[in-house]
Amino acid sequence: MIHHTESQLADSRKSGTPRRVLIVGGVAGGASCAARLRRLDETVEILMFDRGPYVSFANCGLPYYVGNVISNERKLLVASREMFRERFNIEVQTETEVTGIDRNAHAITVRNMRTSETRMERYDALVLSPGAAPIRPPLPGVDLPGVFAMRNIPDSRRIRSWIADHSAKTAVVVGGGFIGLEMVENLIHRELSVTVLEKLPQVMPTLDPEMAVPLMEHLTAKGVGLHLGDGLARIEERDEGGLVVIAESGTRLPADLVILAIGVRPETTLAKDAGLVIGPRGGVVVDAQMRTSDPHIWAVGDAVEVQDVLTGQDTVLPLAGPANRQGRVAAESIAGRATNFRGVQATAVVGVLGLTVASTGASEKGLRRAGVTGFEKVYLHPGHHAGYYPGARPIHLKLLFSTPNGRILGAQALGFEGVEKRIDVIATAIQFNGTVHDLAEAELCYAPQFGAAKDPVNLAGMLAENVLNGDMPVADWLELDRTDALLLDVREPDEFVRGHIAQAINLPLSQLRSRYVDLAKDRDIWIYCAVGQRAYFAARFLTQHGYRSRNLSGGYTTYKALKAAGVVP
Amino acid sequence: MIHHTESQLADSRKSGTPRRVLIVGGVAGGASCAARLRRLDETVEILMFDRGPYVSFANCGLPYYVGNVISNERKLLVASREMFRERFNIEVQTETEVTGIDRNAHAITVRNMRTSETRMERYDALVLSPGAAPIRPPLPGVDLPGVFAMRNIPDSRRIRSWIADHSAKTAVVVGGGFIGLEMVENLIHRELSVTVLEKLPQVMPTLDPEMAVPLMEHLTAKGVGLHLGDGLARIEERDEGGLVVIAESGTRLPADLVILAIGVRPETTLAKDAGLVIGPRGGVVVDAQMRTSDPHIWAVGDAVEVQDVLTGQDTVLPLAGPANRQGRVAAESIAGRATNFRGVQATAVVGVLGLTVASTGASEKGLRRAGVTGFEKVYLHPGHHAGYYPGARPIHLKLLFSTPNGRILGAQALGFEGVEKRIDVIATAIQFNGTVHDLAEAELCYAPQFGAAKDPVNLAGMLAENVLNGDMPVADWLELDRTDALLLDVREPDEFVRGHIAQAINLPLSQLRSRYVDLAKDRDIWIYCAVGQRAYFAARFLTQHGYRSRNLSGGYTTYKALKAAGVVP
Repeated sequence: MIHHTESQLADSRKSGTPRRVLIVGGVAGGASCAARLRRLDETVEILMFDRGPYVSFANCGLPYYVGNVISNERKLLVASREMFRERFNIEVQTETEVTGIDRNAHAITVRNMRTSETRMERYDALVLSPGAAPIRPPLPGVDLPGVFAMRNIPDSRRIRSWIADHSAKTAVVVGGGFIGLEMVENLIHRELSVTVLEKLPQVMPTLDPEMAVPLMEHLTAKGVGLHLGDGLARIEERDEGGLVVIAESGTRLPADLVILAIGVRPETTLAKDAGLVIGPRGGVVVDAQMRTSDPHIWAVGDAVEVQDVLTGQDTVLPLAGPANRQGRVAAESIAGRATNFRGVQATAVVGVLGLTVASTGASEKGLRRAGVTGFEKVYLHPGHHAGYYPGARPIHLKLLFSTPNGRILGAQALGFEGVEKRIDVIATAIQFNGTVHDLAEAELCYAPQFGAAKDPVNLAGMLAENVLNGDMPVADWLELDRTDALLLDVREPDEFVRGHIAQAINLPLSQLRSRYVDLAKDRDIWIYCAVGQRAYFAARFLTQHGYRSRNLSGGYTTYKALKAAGVVP
Repeated sequence: MIHHTESQLADSRKSGTPRRVLIVGGVAGGASCAARLRRLDETVEILMFDRGPYVSFANCGLPYYVGNVISNERKLLVASREMFRERFNIEVQTETEVTGIDRNAHAITVRNMRTSETRMERYDALVLSPGAAPIRPPLPGVDLPGVFAMRNIPDSRRIRSWIADHSAKTAVVVGGGFIGLEMVENLIHRELSVTVLEKLPQVMPTLDPEMAVPLMEHLTAKGVGLHLGDGLARIEERDEGGLVVIAESGTRLPADLVILAIGVRPETTLAKDAGLVIGPRGGVVVDAQMRTSDPHIWAVGDAVEVQDVLTGQDTVLPLAGPANRQGRVAAESIAGRATNFRGVQATAVVGVLGLTVASTGASEKGLRRAGVTGFEKVYLHPGHHAGYYPGARPIHLKLLFSTPNGRILGAQALGFEGVEKRIDVIATAIQFNGTVHDLAEAELCYAPQFGAAKDPVNLAGMLAENVLNGDMPVADWLELDRTDALLLDVREPDEFVRGHIAQAINLPLSQLRSRYVDLAKDRDIWIYCAVGQRAYFAARFLTQHGYRSRNLSGGYTTYKALKAAGVVP
């Protein structure tokens, strides 16, 4: 993060409130900044430039336009040039590229893409909101007709046309992250047969591997082909027409259509050429007022590095919500107001063929990557509402928290209903540096069709409290194959018979009080049930009777996911 | 709230951890307390008594059992006597009434309701969880056959039988609060024709009157009769069979079935007879460890007074979530652990025929009743998700906050989707003493089918920030008929023609920049549009051009609700 010296800022303040503000990039962050600035200052001149034909379009809606869920392209246009002029007296120049910044002259070079004419535009303040570009790996065939990456409305329009013109029946989506999976949903909606090619052994890389398992099972159940742990090698045209995606393993995936959804890369050419500081994550470096290393230049949105409030590390996070807030902060900073961008916590959601996947804060692998130690986790699988009301469906939830202070570090959740609600609540608690104790005593909406007297959020907090205060020591699933502890399955015999961990013995909770004396006291006991509740009861009982017991968090449900993810053998 | 002296507590501690704990009342708070206490202490003897035939049943599910949404009565039984014995070694005695407490002897009198036999049971710690009883006003006819109040499974079973046996076609529900409206939904589900008789001029008394308007419109649209502002006088049998409910006004409402859902009253007979301190709100007074004025007796659930964290006042709040938490706190206190009940914030939700109504914290009328001044409010009506994605439906949201510090005081919301999610997020922010600034910068889940880049929660926070920092001074709707301000409607002419506030003039936002000079500068200008956004833009413009402008929060949508509620003339 940039820290300006007082003299630098004093120098920039000397010039007073900027009279002429130029904004490069008119989507999300740029458009937010422009509108906010006008509301703060009627006198400043505001010009916004965009390379594309539109500004302020709903880029998060593009996959749904491909899927024809959004059938009218105009719906994607949140605000038009005319609206910017009429409402805000903001001049918008589309199909206009900004090709250079002369920081000494406080001027940018602007090229009209229709006429190729260039000119200089002077600024008092400059805002860069260039976004991030889809990564197109330099591999053979990625530029073939029928291979698409998606960034703007014309891109989606081309995909729509391609599907229609070629009666496309099959597609390969390269990359199983947010955009990739949204494309999967929408191509399925268009009745294409879809295969995902993903280099990692899981989809949705923001999730921990075991949490991605229910999602992968869901995709498979919906007929989506998953080709994981294999990268893209090249794409070729088939003699009989259509394309074939060739993976690094040699696997050949035929497709009428290929979507590259490998990820995005901050657009920093302009900033880099102008000598602005670029960070190690490849984004423009800014301070908490979104000011770059040049105090007359601000940058916002997908192109900047921002601080992750959980790890304290700088990151790039291409999400619309933070981009909008950054645009507001930049506007406030330019208008001379006290303002501050508080950083990001990576709250995100994706809907995939009926399943909702949401997360906030750090993942376990993210914490390990950041070198964070001293954390613990719990798994739970509560119904999305009270079990006695019909239709309750499980939410798979993982909560990560610091030890011993219980600060919430992150949460991941999957399910069919009420998933993003729980993540939003946990995200809010994270915003306040909340602890698992706060989750335990959160007072949330409860009626039987909406939640439970102990909401999944409360349960997650209570479980974590039990871990923290020693009431429920947890065993690490990863040590399952190296422990010499007795593995105790406390489910009923019929559940045990239908599937259990190989070395486990079965002593149902319902018989534990009468039969516990058979257990050896000199041995550690690791306990599991279906989801963790009965194991917790059993562990409390055994601990108080002098046994050394631990709970395997999340029970057999979590075990199966860990096993499917290859995390436990 | 009780504050025990150190010597009182020292005295109670002298006896050490209680060896015998008796719990009176086996639902919600009592059952939670029992199970939690066992998990904390295997050695203590725990007995739980209940007057009814069941313990630990889902009383929040009772209306849905009447409605046959829950068709199997067993679903309502969360835990059985057997489960308490097997899992927790807790003895449950049902159909057993506790008739007296001898505090000196540390003993209660217990009556077996089947045999009428009585006996004494000694305690080291006693927990009272008697709940609250439905109010049956002492009016003629309230005990007639066909008139029901609902508290337990046998009550609901009787209502079900009555509907079946009498082929009931019409019902009157007396009382339009949570339980009343849940009964309405379920009786409609049973294809009865339903009328609500409510003494207040609104349903859902926890809402401010204008916020209840969309709910009342919804009920009316669904064919529910609303007879408001009229109390129950008596109930009579009709000669031709069936009943007739006679209101104070003399209005006669025939019905095959009458439900009394007027409210509940803490059950305090036992506590009162034992000389425990009862508070001004009629509940048992307890400290933050749920201990009554007798240090050997705890009380939890609907029968106790708890502190409202927003007003600081004591209140009774019959909700299952807090009751469960109180049961846990009592168990922890009895087990000698440090624990604390943080108070309540009245987070609640009800689903009514597809509409969701939720709230947390204080209402405006609640604040006024509590004598709180120095607060402000905003109204907004955002879509429940991004407008460009099909199917967005409005959420009507009211946010109350302190001035000038912006602390969130309460929120009310109605809509068809995503309503309780927003209230849960705001409830969480309230838990942390959050401000509207925190709401503005909350990082919540966004994908087009789930939310918006600026979520309704963000928008509410931003609007409130605008009010607090003077960017958007708001005018009070209540002063609409006494102001001499110019009333400016900035919607488009076609919207204006379809309905507007009588004295308003129309100058659309789209023409404001070219025509504003026609406005007189020496006059206050109060601005409105449909929901508030365009008015805000107009107000920012005019203010910066030297006009004294204010925004009428929530626009014409809020105006219509206020007018329908009789709040504005």
